[in-house]
Amino acid sequence: MAGENDKTVSAAILAIGDELLSGRTMDKNIGYIARYMTEIGVDVREARIVADEEERIVAALNELRSSYDYVFTTGGIGPTHDDITADAVAKAFGVPISHHPQALAILKERYEKLRGLELNEARLRMARIPDGGGLIENTVSGAPGIHIGNVFVMAGVPAIMQAMLDKVAPLLKTGRRMLSRTLKLSVAEGDIAAILEAVQKQYSGLSIGSYPFYNEQVFGTNVVLRARDEKLLDEAEAALREALGALAGNG
Amino acid sequence: MAGENDKTVSAAILAIGDELLSGRTMDKNIGYIARYMTEIGVDVREARIVADEEERIVAALNELRSSYDYVFTTGGIGPTHDDITADAVAKAFGVPISHHPQALAILKERYEKLRGLELNEARLRMARIPDGGGLIENTVSGAPGIHIGNVFVMAGVPAIMQAMLDKVAPLLKTGRRMLSRTLKLSVAEGDIAAILEAVQKQYSGLSIGSYPFYNEQVFGTNVVLRARDEKLLDEAEAALREALGALAGNG
Repeated sequence: MAGENDKTVSAAILAIGDELLSGRTMDKNIGYIARYMTEIGVDVREARIVADEEERIVAALNELRSSYDYVFTTGGIGPTHDDITADAVAKAFGVPISHHPQALAILKERYEKLRGLELNEARLRMARIPDGGGLIENTVSGAPGIHIGNVFVMAGVPAIMQAMLDKVAPLLKTGRRMLSRTLKLSVAEGDIAAILEAVQKQYSGLSIGSYPFYNEQVFGTNVVLRARDEKLLDEAEAALREALGALAGNG
Repeated sequence: MAGENDKTVSAAILAIGDELLSGRTMDKNIGYIARYMTEIGVDVREARIVADEEERIVAALNELRSSYDYVFTTGGIGPTHDDITADAVAKAFGVPISHHPQALAILKERYEKLRGLELNEARLRMARIPDGGGLIENTVSGAPGIHIGNVFVMAGVPAIMQAMLDKVAPLLKTGRRMLSRTLKLSVAEGDIAAILEAVQKQYSGLSIGSYPFYNEQVFGTNVVLRARDEKLLDEAEAALREALGALAGNG
C-alpha cells in the first residue's frame, strides 16, 4: 500500500559525555537506539558524540534538530556538576529552565520515600526541566528524561536509557519500516562486486550493502538487501541469487 | 616540564556506514580509537557516524578537518559500489582521484600473487587515491588506507582498522597525555555531588567526571579525575579522598 505510510521519518542521535571520547566508556546507546528505530520505522541518519561542553552540545543539538524529524540525546542528566545536558537543551531552545512540579514529586517519592535518601540540592537538579518540556518516565531510577520539541533527552546509563526509550517509542510518528535480507557468502566481496552493482542499478528503492568478514583465513561477505517494499525485496533477492549462481550456494 | 609539550592535540572520528545507523553492526572503532588516542596524547573531541551518502560524508569531513588537528575516518574503502569514502574524500579536498602506482603494486602482490584472486575492476577501485594522498599500510588484507592533509582514511573492519592505526600513530604529533584516576565508590552520586563540585572548583586543569552504576540493587559511582599534570592529580585525589572521608573507604 502506498499513501501516508510511504513517508520516511528521520532521526539523529546525540551521545553526550567526555567518557565516551576518552575511551573510558564504550558507547552502547547509539547502536541500541539505531536498531530499535529501524525496527519501528524511523531512519537514523546520523549520530554524534560530543563532550560535556555546553557550547558543543548546543551547537550539535541545534544543527541536528533542524535537520531531522527527531533527535535522541543520551547522557548528562544526573545530579553532579558534569551533568549539563538539561541546561544545554534549554539554551539550544532559548528557554529558561526551572524545577518541574511533577519531576519534583517523582524525586520525592523515589529518593525520600522509597530509598530513604536525602533530596539534596544536587538531586533536585534532576528536576530541572527546560520550560515547555515534558517528562520521560524513568522506571529504573526515577529521575525523568525530557521531551521538548522534537528532542528526547535520555539518561546515559544503558539500562535507564532503554527503559526511557520504551516510553518514547509510542510517541513517535513512524514511517514505512525498512526491511532487510542478508545473504552470507563464502566469497570475497571483490569477486561479486560487479554482480552486486548490476543488481543495485536494476532496482530503485533498494540498497545493497556489502560487508566483508574474515574468519580463520577465510574471506567472506555478508550482502544485505534493504528496501521498504517486501515485493521489491523478494524480486531483488531472487535476481541476486540467480546472478550469483553457485556463489550463493544455489548449486 | 612545561614548554612545547604543554600543548594539546585534538582529533575527531568520522565513522562511515549505513550498517552502523541501521543497528545491523555495532560500531567498535570509535571507542577503540578514542582510547588509543588518549593513551598517546591526542584528545578526541567529537565523533560522528554518517551513512554512505557522498554529500553527508563531504560535509562532515570538511567541518571536522577544519575544526580539529586530525580526523580519522573508518569504513567505505572496499571494492564494492557502496564503498564511496575515497571519492568523498577527494571531493572534500577538491582534488581528482586516480589509481596510485604503489597501491596498484600492493594489490597485485596481495591479491594476484599471494591469494590467487583476480585483480578485477572492483578490486582496482581500492587503489584509487585522492591526488596528493599517501598510503596507510594494511598488514591484514593489503588494500591500503589513505593519508591526505590532516585526514587518515581507514578500513571499517575492526581488525584492519586497528592494524592501520598502529601505522598512523607514529605519524601524529602528540600533546601532553591526559592522566586519570578512578575511585569506585559504593555510594549514590547524589550523595557526593556537592563534594565533587567543591573539589572541581578548587583545581583548574582538572576535570572530575561522575559515572553512576547500578548493580544488583546497589547504586555506586565511579569518580574519574583527569588532568595532564601528575602532581596536580595527586593533590586533587588526596583532597577528594579527605573530603569524602569514610565514603571513600578511608576509615
